[in-house]
Amino acid sequence: MGSRVWFPTAGLLVWLCCLSLGTVHGGKVLVMPVDGSHWLSMKILVKELSRRGHEVTVLVPESRLLIQGSDSYKTKIYQVPYTQAELDSQFESLRERLFDTPPHFTDFFVNVDRLVAFTSVQALGCKALLNNEPLISQLRVEGFEMVLTDPFLPCGSILAKIFSVPAVYFLRGLPCGLDTQASQCPSPASYVPVSFSGNTNNMTFLQRVTNIMMSYVESYLCGIMYKHFDDLTSMQFGNGMTYKELISHGAIWLLRYDFTFEWPKPVMPNQVFIGGINCAKKAPLPADLQEFADGSGDDGFIVFTLGSLVASMPEEKAKQFFDAFRQIPQRVVWRYTGPLPKDVPKNVRVMKWLPQNDLLAHPKAKVFMTHGGTHGIYEGICNGVPMLMFPLFGDQGDNVHRMVARGVAEKISAFEVTTETVVAALKKMIQDKSYKERMEALSQIHLDRPIGPLDLAVFWSEFVMRHKGAPHLRVAAHDLNWFQYHSLDVIGFLVAVVLVVLWVTLKSCAFIFHKCCGKRIVKKKSE
Amino acid sequence: MGSRVWFPTAGLLVWLCCLSLGTVHGGKVLVMPVDGSHWLSMKILVKELSRRGHEVTVLVPESRLLIQGSDSYKTKIYQVPYTQAELDSQFESLRERLFDTPPHFTDFFVNVDRLVAFTSVQALGCKALLNNEPLISQLRVEGFEMVLTDPFLPCGSILAKIFSVPAVYFLRGLPCGLDTQASQCPSPASYVPVSFSGNTNNMTFLQRVTNIMMSYVESYLCGIMYKHFDDLTSMQFGNGMTYKELISHGAIWLLRYDFTFEWPKPVMPNQVFIGGINCAKKAPLPADLQEFADGSGDDGFIVFTLGSLVASMPEEKAKQFFDAFRQIPQRVVWRYTGPLPKDVPKNVRVMKWLPQNDLLAHPKAKVFMTHGGTHGIYEGICNGVPMLMFPLFGDQGDNVHRMVARGVAEKISAFEVTTETVVAALKKMIQDKSYKERMEALSQIHLDRPIGPLDLAVFWSEFVMRHKGAPHLRVAAHDLNWFQYHSLDVIGFLVAVVLVVLWVTLKSCAFIFHKCCGKRIVKKKSE
Repeated sequence: MGSRVWFPTAGLLVWLCCLSLGTVHGGKVLVMPVDGSHWLSMKILVKELSRRGHEVTVLVPESRLLIQGSDSYKTKIYQVPYTQAELDSQFESLRERLFDTPPHFTDFFVNVDRLVAFTSVQALGCKALLNNEPLISQLRVEGFEMVLTDPFLPCGSILAKIFSVPAVYFLRGLPCGLDTQASQCPSPASYVPVSFSGNTNNMTFLQRVTNIMMSYVESYLCGIMYKHFDDLTSMQFGNGMTYKELISHGAIWLLRYDFTFEWPKPVMPNQVFIGGINCAKKAPLPADLQEFADGSGDDGFIVFTLGSLVASMPEEKAKQFFDAFRQIPQRVVWRYTGPLPKDVPKNVRVMKWLPQNDLLAHPKAKVFMTHGGTHGIYEGICNGVPMLMFPLFGDQGDNVHRMVARGVAEKISAFEVTTETVVAALKKMIQDKSYKERMEALSQIHLDRPIGPLDLAVFWSEFVMRHKGAPHLRVAAHDLNWFQYHSLDVIGFLVAVVLVVLWVTLKSCAFIFHKCCGKRIVKKKSE
Repeated sequence: MGSRVWFPTAGLLVWLCCLSLGTVHGGKVLVMPVDGSHWLSMKILVKELSRRGHEVTVLVPESRLLIQGSDSYKTKIYQVPYTQAELDSQFESLRERLFDTPPHFTDFFVNVDRLVAFTSVQALGCKALLNNEPLISQLRVEGFEMVLTDPFLPCGSILAKIFSVPAVYFLRGLPCGLDTQASQCPSPASYVPVSFSGNTNNMTFLQRVTNIMMSYVESYLCGIMYKHFDDLTSMQFGNGMTYKELISHGAIWLLRYDFTFEWPKPVMPNQVFIGGINCAKKAPLPADLQEFADGSGDDGFIVFTLGSLVASMPEEKAKQFFDAFRQIPQRVVWRYTGPLPKDVPKNVRVMKWLPQNDLLAHPKAKVFMTHGGTHGIYEGICNGVPMLMFPLFGDQGDNVHRMVARGVAEKISAFEVTTETVVAALKKMIQDKSYKERMEALSQIHLDRPIGPLDLAVFWSEFVMRHKGAPHLRVAAHDLNWFQYHSLDVIGFLVAVVLVVLWVTLKSCAFIFHKCCGKRIVKKKSE
C-alpha cells in the first residue's frame, strides 16, 4: 500500500455532484470572533462561508489587534470602554519579560493572572456591546440563522441565546478544560493529561498523582478565571446561569486539533476535528523568497517566527540568535521587527511578515523555529518540518510538550536561549534524520483524511443552518446535575434499600430467635 | 436554507482529484465474517474493497446460512464440526414459538441462553479453523495487510493477532456492551440506556435505578456469555487473556449506526459511524414490482418483511395478517414463504424475496412492517418511511424502542398480533401525518453527511492498510487496569497522605499542648 492513496468511488463523485446540483440558499451568519491569533484561523472559515454564498457579518470591536475588514464579509464595528492604546499596552505587558524571566513553578499562576486580566477587559467590551441597544436591535432584525463564535469569550454565545439561533464554536480549547466540561465529554485524569501538568497520556503513578492534583487545582481556578463571564451570563439571563451552562448549548464544536497533535481521548458526537484548517491551502512563494529558498543548497533553510503577537525581543537575546545563525550553514528567514545589529549574518533574512506555511511547504525547509502556537505547529505537521520550540505563554508549554514527546521537536526555554543552545539543538535536529522521519510519518497520518478540515467546518456550519441546530447530537447528560450524572442518588438509594432489607432481616431473625429460643431459655432458667 | 445542499468547494474536488491521481496499490484483505444478517452489510464493504482493486479473501464455513461465493472475492472454505442440518435446526429452534409465546420478564434470560448456545457452536467452528494447520499455513504466507471481521465471533481477531496484522471491525454492537468496554468508551449509566432495560436516554429516577441494576446484571452475564470465547482466547495466547482484551486491539471500529438511530453518547476516536451503509445504493425496481407500486394509487402500498431469518410464521398468525390486509385500501408486498390461504386478498402480493430498500424508496411506500433489525430500520430511515414493528429476538426489542420513542414507529408484540391490532395501527400511522413528518426529518438528518458511509468504511480500511493500523487513535486507557483507570490507587494514596499529615499534626499539637499546658496544670494542681 502506498501512502495517501485514497480513491473516491465513482459513487462518491456522483453523490458529490448530486449535492452540488442542489440549490445553495445563502444563509445569514453572525460572527463574534476573538481577537489575536484566534482570529487568524477563524477568518479562513468566515471567508469560505462567504465564498459559498452565505451572508456573513463580523462584529468588530473599535479597539482591536488583528481583526480587519474585508471584501468577503460585512463588519459591524462596536464601541468598547477601552482605547487602542490601553489594549496595546495590555499585550505589551504580556510580551514583556518573556525572554528574561526564568521558568518557575509560579508561571501557572502568572498565566492565570494574565488570563483573568484579559478576560475582565473583554467582559467589559462584551457588556458594552450588549448594552448597545441600537446595534442589538439592528442585529435582531437581520434574522441570522447561526452564530459562529469562539467561546473563549462570552459575547457570541450570549448573542446566540438572545437571538434564539444555534451557535457553532470554533476553538482550540478553553482554559481549565471548560470546553470538555461544557460538552459533557468524559476526561479520565488517569490518562488524559491536565493542562500545565507536564504529563503525556502515559503516566507513571507519581505523574498520575500530579495529574489528579492539578485537575483539582484546575477546577478550583476555573471558578476564578470565569468569574467575570459567570457574572455577565447570570446578569443577562438570571437564574444564576453559569458560563459553562451557557456554552453547553453550542450545537457543534469545531475543534482545531486532531490526534496527530492531541493525545487520543473520549470525544462527543457534536465535536468535529478540524486540526490543520490553517495549512490546507498553499500559495506560491513571492519571487524573492522562492529564490532565497531554492538557493539554499543541500543545507536548506530554517524558518523562524514567534507568532502573531511577538515580533521582537530584547536586543541581547536577538544577538544570541544572530550569533547562532552565523555558525550554521543553513539559510534563515526570520520574522523580526526589532533593531538589527550592524553585522547581520549573510545567511539571515529578516522580514516583518513572512508566508510561513508556504515557506514550510518548500522541500528545502529543514527546521521550523517556533513558539508553539497551534497554528504554527499544524503548519509544521502539515509540511513535515521538525520544530525547534520556544514556548512563551498560555497553552504553548503544553503544545510544545506534545511535539517533543512525539520525537518531532526539541524545546529551549526562552530564558535559556544562548548561541550555544540554539546551535547545538539545530545541529542535532538536522544531523539526526529520525526527527524528519517521525515528522513525515506524523504528517502523512495528519493529511490522510476522508475530507479536508475546511470542507468539514463548512459542512457542519451549513448543517446547523439547514437543520436549525444539531439536537440529535446533544447528550442527555446536559439535563442531569453532577450527582445524578454519577448516579450517586441511585447508588445511595440502592445502598439504603440493601441496609433496610438487612435490618428487617436481622430484626426478624432476632424476633424469631427471641420467640423460639427465648422461651426455652426462660424455661431452662426457671427449671 | 434548503435541505441537503452541501456544496463541495472547488478545493475539495481538486483535492479529491489529486488523491485519485495517486497510484492505488491493491491491498490484501482477509475477511472473517459472521453468518446471517451480519454478513449482508459486511458483504457491501467486501465487494467495494474488491472493486477498488484490493485482493479480498473471505473465510467461509462449510455449513452456513447466508454467506456465498462471488466473482468479487476469493473464498476459502473450512470444515466445521457441525453439519448444515444441525446449523439449520439451531436456527429453526430460534424461529419456533416466536409468535405464540407471550412477552415475559424471562425473555432476557432466554435471549442470553440462545446466545450462549449459538456462541458455543461458533466457538467450535473457530477452533476447527484454528486447528486446520494446512489452511492456517496457507493463509500465513499470503501476507495479508488487514483482517476485516465482526468481533461478534472471535476467529477474525485471533487470526489478526496470529498473523500480526491490524484488524478492522464491522459491527452493530456486541451483546452486554462488550464493544463499549473493549474500546474503553465511557458509557455513563445515568443517560446511556443499557440493553433490554427498555429505557431511553432521558430517564426518571426509577428508570435510572433499573438502568444501573441492569448494568450490573449485564456485566455479570457478560462473563457467562463470553466464557467460550475467553477459553478459546486464553488457550490460544495464554496468560489468561480474555476475549475483551483480545478485541481491544482492533484498529478501527466501523459501527453500523449513527445518532439518528442511537441516542447520543460519548464515542472514541477510533470509532467510525457507518449507519445506513446498507441503504446508500439504490437500483430500479423489477418491471412487475414497479407496476405494482405505481398502480397503488393515492393509498400507496405497504412493505412487509421480518428479516433474513424469518420468512414464515404459524398459519393461524399469517391468517390474522391476511385478514388485516383485506380491510385496508393499501396494496401490500409481503416476503412470506409459508402456506397461502385459498383467498389471498387481491391487494396482497406475496414474494419469496423482495428488493426491500428499492421498494421503500418508491414515493408511494406508506408504511414499512418490519421486525426491527438494524438493516431494515436504516432502510426505513434512509427512505423516510414510518414503521410498524414486530420485534422478535436479540437486540430487536431495543431497536424498536428507539424508533417508537422518536415517534416514527409503532410496535406490536408478535404474540399480540391480531387482525384488529394490525388494522388499527396501520390506519393510525397512515392517517396521522406526524409519523411521516418526523420520519422525513430524521431521514434528512441521516442523509445529510459530509461523506457517505460506504466511502467512509473504505477510507478507514485503506487507512489501516496504508499506516499498518491506527495507533494514534488508541487511547492509553488500554494500558491501565480498572483500579488505575478510575484513579483509585491515586485517591487512596492522597487520602493516606492527608490522614498521615492530620495524624502527625494532631500528635504534634497534643505533644505541644502536653508540654506547655501540662506543666501549668500540674503546677496549678500542686498549688
